[in-house]
Amino acid sequence: MVQLQNSECDLLIVGAGPAGLMAATWAARCGLNARIIDKRGTKVFNGQADGLSSRSLEIFDSFGFADRVWKESNHLLEICLWNPDGSGIIRRTDRIPDTIPGISRFQQVVLHQGRIERFFLDSLEEYSDIEVERGVLPVELDIDHSKSEDYDAYPITVKLRHLGDDEATPFQHSTNVSDGLFRSSLAKDDTDDLIRKSKGKQGTTEIVRAKYMIGCDGAHSWTRRQLGFQMEGEQTDFIWGVLDIIPITNFPDIRMRCAIHSVESGSVMVIPRENKLVRLYIQLTEVSSTGQQADRSTITPDIVLKAAQKIMSPYKLSYDYCDWWTAYQIGQRVGNKFSCDERIFLAGDAVHTHSPKAGQGMNVSMQDTYNLGWKIGLVVNGIAKRSILKTYQSERRRIAQDLIAFDHRFSRLFSGRPAKDAADEAGISMSEFKDVFEEGIMFGSGLAVDYGASMLVAKAGDSADQGDGADVRPLLNGHTNGVGNLVGKQDLASNIKMGKRFPSFQVLNQADARPWHFAQYLKSDGRFRIIIFAGNLKDTQQFKRVQTFGENLAKPDSFINRCTRPTKPIDSVIEILVIHSAPRWEVELLDLHEIFHPFDKKTGWDYNKVFVDDLSYHEGHGEAYKNYGVDEERGCVVIARPDQYVGWIGELEDVGDMDRYFSRILIPQA
Amino acid sequence: MVQLQNSECDLLIVGAGPAGLMAATWAARCGLNARIIDKRGTKVFNGQADGLSSRSLEIFDSFGFADRVWKESNHLLEICLWNPDGSGIIRRTDRIPDTIPGISRFQQVVLHQGRIERFFLDSLEEYSDIEVERGVLPVELDIDHSKSEDYDAYPITVKLRHLGDDEATPFQHSTNVSDGLFRSSLAKDDTDDLIRKSKGKQGTTEIVRAKYMIGCDGAHSWTRRQLGFQMEGEQTDFIWGVLDIIPITNFPDIRMRCAIHSVESGSVMVIPRENKLVRLYIQLTEVSSTGQQADRSTITPDIVLKAAQKIMSPYKLSYDYCDWWTAYQIGQRVGNKFSCDERIFLAGDAVHTHSPKAGQGMNVSMQDTYNLGWKIGLVVNGIAKRSILKTYQSERRRIAQDLIAFDHRFSRLFSGRPAKDAADEAGISMSEFKDVFEEGIMFGSGLAVDYGASMLVAKAGDSADQGDGADVRPLLNGHTNGVGNLVGKQDLASNIKMGKRFPSFQVLNQADARPWHFAQYLKSDGRFRIIIFAGNLKDTQQFKRVQTFGENLAKPDSFINRCTRPTKPIDSVIEILVIHSAPRWEVELLDLHEIFHPFDKKTGWDYNKVFVDDLSYHEGHGEAYKNYGVDEERGCVVIARPDQYVGWIGELEDVGDMDRYFSRILIPQA
Repeated sequence: MVQLQNSECDLLIVGAGPAGLMAATWAARCGLNARIIDKRGTKVFNGQADGLSSRSLEIFDSFGFADRVWKESNHLLEICLWNPDGSGIIRRTDRIPDTIPGISRFQQVVLHQGRIERFFLDSLEEYSDIEVERGVLPVELDIDHSKSEDYDAYPITVKLRHLGDDEATPFQHSTNVSDGLFRSSLAKDDTDDLIRKSKGKQGTTEIVRAKYMIGCDGAHSWTRRQLGFQMEGEQTDFIWGVLDIIPITNFPDIRMRCAIHSVESGSVMVIPRENKLVRLYIQLTEVSSTGQQADRSTITPDIVLKAAQKIMSPYKLSYDYCDWWTAYQIGQRVGNKFSCDERIFLAGDAVHTHSPKAGQGMNVSMQDTYNLGWKIGLVVNGIAKRSILKTYQSERRRIAQDLIAFDHRFSRLFSGRPAKDAADEAGISMSEFKDVFEEGIMFGSGLAVDYGASMLVAKAGDSADQGDGADVRPLLNGHTNGVGNLVGKQDLASNIKMGKRFPSFQVLNQADARPWHFAQYLKSDGRFRIIIFAGNLKDTQQFKRVQTFGENLAKPDSFINRCTRPTKPIDSVIEILVIHSAPRWEVELLDLHEIFHPFDKKTGWDYNKVFVDDLSYHEGHGEAYKNYGVDEERGCVVIARPDQYVGWIGELEDVGDMDRYFSRILIPQA
Repeated sequence: MVQLQNSECDLLIVGAGPAGLMAATWAARCGLNARIIDKRGTKVFNGQADGLSSRSLEIFDSFGFADRVWKESNHLLEICLWNPDGSGIIRRTDRIPDTIPGISRFQQVVLHQGRIERFFLDSLEEYSDIEVERGVLPVELDIDHSKSEDYDAYPITVKLRHLGDDEATPFQHSTNVSDGLFRSSLAKDDTDDLIRKSKGKQGTTEIVRAKYMIGCDGAHSWTRRQLGFQMEGEQTDFIWGVLDIIPITNFPDIRMRCAIHSVESGSVMVIPRENKLVRLYIQLTEVSSTGQQADRSTITPDIVLKAAQKIMSPYKLSYDYCDWWTAYQIGQRVGNKFSCDERIFLAGDAVHTHSPKAGQGMNVSMQDTYNLGWKIGLVVNGIAKRSILKTYQSERRRIAQDLIAFDHRFSRLFSGRPAKDAADEAGISMSEFKDVFEEGIMFGSGLAVDYGASMLVAKAGDSADQGDGADVRPLLNGHTNGVGNLVGKQDLASNIKMGKRFPSFQVLNQADARPWHFAQYLKSDGRFRIIIFAGNLKDTQQFKRVQTFGENLAKPDSFINRCTRPTKPIDSVIEILVIHSAPRWEVELLDLHEIFHPFDKKTGWDYNKVFVDDLSYHEGHGEAYKNYGVDEERGCVVIARPDQYVGWIGELEDVGDMDRYFSRILIPQA
C-alpha cells in the first residue's frame, strides 16, 4: 500500500463550474490557501448555460472582468411575445424591454458558459496561484463535529482520487455535434460509475484536511449525498429540447428574445446569442414521458428541429450549423439544508434545480457562492466571527425557494396550450403569461434580492423569523442581548435599501473630475465600506459635522482602529468613501480630515476616496443624491458589506451604532 | 563569403514604434505579406510618449482595442492654469475642459507607450503572422525607379543585418531609473555606430526585395538619410526636463493637467498618469544652451526636481519613486518630401519633430501610417489604383506643417515669462496663453484634420492647390478630364464634412434593438462604406426611392459588382450600411431590398447592416439625423473611406456620381 499524500488547505471547492469558480475567485481575492477540483477533464466548450443577469454583470465588474463579457456577449434588449391569432397563425402580440430600464448599469446578456469560465480562470491566474485541478474526484468525506467551532481546526477530511484522461471525458452521443445530455436531467449521474471504475486502475489518491469545504458539484451532488441532505420538490411531465444553431429563417424576430405559443404544437423560446448563434428551447409534445422519466434515446436534433418548425410555421426554419443540443425534463427542487456545522456548504445546482428557460441557473448558482466566499475569507483570515457563516443559509435558501416558486408558475404557463377564449379554462391566458413574464424579468435581474434581518443586516424585523431556521440573531460578546437589536435609519436614504445591493449612480472624483459609476469603487476585495454622504461641504456647520465624524473614526480606540491590525493600512478592513454634494470647484480635497484621504509616505495622499455629485464634462449629471434619496444638505452614512449589500444606515453622529454593527461581527485585533 | 538569404515581401516597415506598429496593423488587416524590423532589442517599458488624443482612441476602436486603453489609462478631464498673482504667488486662474465636450465619444487619456505597443502586438498576433523582428538593422537601400509604376514589381532592395543582444540594448545613464536620453534630441543618434560596430561581428545579413517600404525610424531616420530628403525648420534655446514620479505634494491640482507659470523661474506642465504616476515637464532655466546644443551631462533628475520645486513653491514637492526621466531641447522641423516614387514613404518623427508637451508626437505619427496603410493594402491587393498613394503626402504633410506652426506659438508662450502688466511687452500675456491653449485642445484632439480635395475627397476646391506638390487630381481612365471634377453635395449632411472623419452618434440595430455608436460599425478592415441615410421608410414614396437605390446597386454592371471579384462576398470591397429614421417598430428588416441584408446560404440573412435612429431602452436617444444634420424624410448617401474620412455626399439618385467616385480610384475586377 502506497503512503497517501497528506495536506491541509483553508478551503476545498468541489466542482469547477460557475459556482465553484466564483468561490475560488473570492478565495483568491482574500488570499486563502484554497483548492478547486473537478471530475471532468476539460472545461466546457459549447452549450450549457448562457444567460447573465444584470446582477451577475455587476458582480463580474466588482472583480474587474465585466467588460470582457460585455464586449463578447450578445445583448438582449427586447422580448417579443408571439401568440396565435383568431385563425391560428402566430403573430407578434407584445414587445417588452428585456431588462427594466434604470435598475442597473448593465442589461441582461448571453454568452456561452465556457467563456465565462475562461474569464474566471484568467482572473484566478492574475490574482493567485489557485488552479483548477481537473480529473480529480472526491471519494470519501469525513467531518469531526467536535472541532467545528475551533477557529484553527481542520475538521474536514476528504480522500481524492486523480482520474486518467479517458475516465474524465464525458460520453458524447455524436462525434460531430456536442451535446449536453450527460449533464441533462434525462441522464443518470456518472459519479458513482467513475468512482467504481477508477478503483481498479492506476492513479494517485490523496488525503486533504480542510477548514472549510463547498460542494458545487451539481444536481447529483456527491457532497450532498455524503451529508445525507435531501432535495425537496417534484418533477413535471414537460419535456424540452434545446438547439444551439445558426438559423436560416424568415422569422422576423430571430435576433430578439421571443416566447412563441402555437395553438396545439407547444411553445418555443428564442434566445439570440453571440457569433450568429441562436438558442431555441422547444417543447417536445410528441415525446412521451413514461411516468417518471422520459426515454431520451428517442430524442435527436432532427426531432427537436421538426418540433420547432411546426410551432413556428408558417415561417421557415432550418440550419447548416448546429453548435450543441440537449434535452431535459423539468424538475423543481430545493435542498433542505445548505450547510453542515457552517463548515461544509452546498451551492448552485447541488441545492436547487429548475427549468433553464428563465436563464437563472448559472446566475443564482454564482450568486450563492458570491454570498458565501467573502464570509469564509474573513473568518479564515481572523477578521470576522464564525457566526456570520450562518447567514449563508438564511440568505440563500430563501432565494432558492423563491426561484423554484417562480419557475413553477412560469413553466406551467409556458408549457400550456393558449386559451382559445375566456371560457377555455383548460387553456393558458396569454395576458396572465405576459404578467408573469414581466414579473420574471425583475426576478431574473437578480436585483430583487432582499436579505433578511441578521447580524449583517441591521434592518427592522425579527431575524429569528427571517433566518430560515438558522440562528442569525446578532450576538455581542457571545450573547444575544439588547445591544443586538440595532436598526438602521432607512428613511435617511430612501433608495438605498438595507438588505439589497447598494445601487450605482455616476459621481465625479474630487481630485481629477473623472466620472465613475460609484459601484466601480465597491470592488470585491473583502473590505467592508463606510460610505459617507457628506452633504453640502460649503456649509460651515455641515463641514464641521463631517470633520467631527472623521475625528471620531480616527480616534485610537475607534472601531476601525480596533478591527485593523496596527501593521496594516487603516483602510484594509473597512474602507471609507465620501460623496459630497457641494460644487466640485468649491471644495479642496486636502481640506478634509486626513482619514478621508490617508497619507502614505511612499505614495503621498490617496486621491481616490472622495467623490462629488456634480455635472461632468462629457457624461451628464449623475444626480446621485437625488437618485439615492439622500438629503443634499445633511447627508447620511451607509455601511456596505464586502458583497455590496447594505448593512446599516445612520446619521453622521451615529458612530456608536456603527461601532455596535462592527463589534458584533468583527474580531478585535489589538 | 556566405550566400546571402534572399526574400520578397509586399511591405517592409523600418521601426516598431507606434507609427510602425500602426502600419503593420493595417498590413495585418489587409492580409499583406509584411515585415517590421527594429534596431532595438526590446520594446519600450517606461516613459516615452503617453498622451492619446480622441482621434487616436477612435482609431484604436476601429481595430478593436480602444477598450483596453480606456480601462488602463488615466483620463484627463480638466486643465488648470496656474499663474502668479500680484504678489508673485502662484494661483489657479482658470479651469478648461481637457477635451471639448461633444466632439468625440472618447476623451484624451494618458497611458505609457509600452502598453500601447503591447496592444498593437496582441492585435498583430490575433490577426496575422506578422511579428516584430528586433535587433535588425537596415544597412543598404536601393530603389529601381524604372519599375516604380509596375504593379507587380519589387523595386526596393534592402540589406538587413541582425544584431547581437548587446548591440541592440540602448545605453542607460543610471542602473536604477530608466531614462530616455538615448532617444532625446540632446543625444546623438547611434544608428551609424551600430552599423559600424556590427560590421566587424558575427551576425546574419540578408537581402529583402519589397514592393513598398515605410521608414518609421525616428527623428534621425536612416531611411530619410538614404533618400537624401531634408528636415526643414529650426532648434530653439529652450531646454526642458521630464520626470515620471509618484509625487508627494500638497499642490492641490496634482491629479489635473496643469500649466504653471512662475514669475521668473520658468514653467511646469503637470500630466497625471496611470498607477499614481505624474509626469512633469519642467523648464530648465539654469541649464545653459551653448549656442546650438545644450550640455546634457549637467542634467540630472535632482536638478530637474529642484527646478520644479522652485516653480511650484510655496507648495512642496518630492518623491520616493521615479519611474523615468529625460531632457530635451525643443526643435521644430518638417520633412521636405514624404515619399519617393510612392514606393518608399516616411512617417512619424522621421518627417516631423517638435515639443512633446502638446502630447502630439505619438498621435500624429500613428495617424500618418493610419492614413497610409490601407492605401498600400488596397494597391497591393489589386483593388485600388496606385494614384491614391499620392494622397499620403498631400494629406499628411500639411498636418505636419500645421502641427509645427502650432507648436512654435505654444512653446514660445509656455517657455516665456508672464507679463507683469499690460505694459510689460517682453512678458507673455496670460490671456493670450489661454487662448492658444484652447485652440491647441481642438488641434490636439486630432479631429480638426480636414483633408483637401483629391481623387479620394470629392469636395469643392482645386486639388492641385491642396495637394502640397503631389498630383492628386482625379483621373479617369488614366486621364484628367471633366469627369474628374466631381463635387459632393455638402449641404445634404451639414455635420458630416467631406475631408473630415465620419462623426459618430448612437443608433439602434433594426434586428435586435441594441444601441451602438455608429462608428463601431466603421471597422478598419480595408473596406469603403456607403452609408445610406434612408430617411422615413414609413413614407411610401421614400421607401420606393430606397428600394430603387438598392436595385441600382444590385445591378450586374453596378460599380459594386464591377469592383468586387465574383468569387468574393458582395460586401468585401464596399460595404453598404443603412440608417433610417422611421420608428423601429414600424419597419421589418426583411422588407428591405436584399442588398441591404445579404443572404449567405450557410448563415442566413445578415442582421448587422440596417440601423434606426430611435429611442433606446437604456441609453437614451442618439438623435443621429439631427446630429448628422441630415433631412429625416429624404436622407442622403455618404461614402466613407476605409479610414472613416468622408469622400463624397449625394442624393439617393446620384448613383452615377458614386460610380464616378469609385471608377477613378478602384480597378475593375470582372
